[in-house]
Amino acid sequence: MSLVLDPTAQDLLFREARTANTFTDEPVTDEQVQAIYDLVKYGPTSMNQSPLRITLVRSAEARERLVAVMAEGNRPKTAAAPLVAILSADNEFHEELPQLFPHFPGAKDVFGGSREFREKSAALNASLQAAYFIIGVRAAGLAAGPMSGFDAAGVQKEFLDDDHTPLMVVNIGRPGEDAAFPRSPRLESEQVITTV
Amino acid sequence: MSLVLDPTAQDLLFREARTANTFTDEPVTDEQVQAIYDLVKYGPTSMNQSPLRITLVRSAEARERLVAVMAEGNRPKTAAAPLVAILSADNEFHEELPQLFPHFPGAKDVFGGSREFREKSAALNASLQAAYFIIGVRAAGLAAGPMSGFDAAGVQKEFLDDDHTPLMVVNIGRPGEDAAFPRSPRLESEQVITTV
Repeated sequence: MSLVLDPTAQDLLFREARTANTFTDEPVTDEQVQAIYDLVKYGPTSMNQSPLRITLVRSAEARERLVAVMAEGNRPKTAAAPLVAILSADNEFHEELPQLFPHFPGAKDVFGGSREFREKSAALNASLQAAYFIIGVRAAGLAAGPMSGFDAAGVQKEFLDDDHTPLMVVNIGRPGEDAAFPRSPRLESEQVITTV
Repeated sequence: MSLVLDPTAQDLLFREARTANTFTDEPVTDEQVQAIYDLVKYGPTSMNQSPLRITLVRSAEARERLVAVMAEGNRPKTAAAPLVAILSADNEFHEELPQLFPHFPGAKDVFGGSREFREKSAALNASLQAAYFIIGVRAAGLAAGPMSGFDAAGVQKEFLDDDHTPLMVVNIGRPGEDAAFPRSPRLESEQVITTV
């Protein structure tokens, strides 16, 4: 009642959407990924940093290399999903700030000094964008299967460079049979929200 | 065309939604916050960790203490917003895992050892939830003004404890006059997405 978002959209994005562990064979097209990006790129980040980078693992050879660095329990679904995306944070995001934050020419220099400062900011803001991306996958009528269980150094070595930190690996597709586990309980609002 | 989410909902959540810097006087009620939480609590986190905690700053005394630890440029809007929320990560989230992940009784022990490991996981997953929260604010027809510019140690000392790390401070309300800056450019998909 307090929400203005249409209940169908609430269901699509949050209430009925579930993390998928099995998928149908239906491919996920580049057009779908483009449509997802073109929507979620508008999600806010600090100073419009936009540090999220997306690696689509499409070739059989690359998929095999990725499966090898996933945690054992994540291997079969990572091997079988129609599309797998590696989400990473670009720790050199400040190089793009002249394009992304043009009204403040000093923006790049704010982050030009400490790599540690950049990494922290990139991790926070790329994580926000990872969540927008998951929402976007659902907005496309697809299911996401985000995974944290992988050898981060292995993913970085195989697919990224020293300037990119892997955040998560996401299986994407239409949910298959028994795609989701029963939903686990959430915290009550009293456990999460305090008022001062 | 590739998205199934209604275009009105796309606009509400991403395309027309903007980070607000001014707000009307209309209050944001506890019922609205509850409705936002009851929707976005379903957003996925790793092992259902759900480490986000929300501190609503409602009293004049608390608002004053918060404004004092915000970056100077963020002070006037933090003082004026109808509601301000401090979003933090609970680094002891594993204590709740018996409730949150009941089908795997060993979940709590996975995170029981290293505080550093917990902090990293809490930062990632609470950041995902912070993004869901921003989307939820927009789903309520409100505008969010998320801010990273504050004295983190000060926010922690004034409002949290040693087990909670502040992630961001969010102004919430109906957008006022000249609420948003002109939208900054986003990266082209070619700058973000690579295929292997």
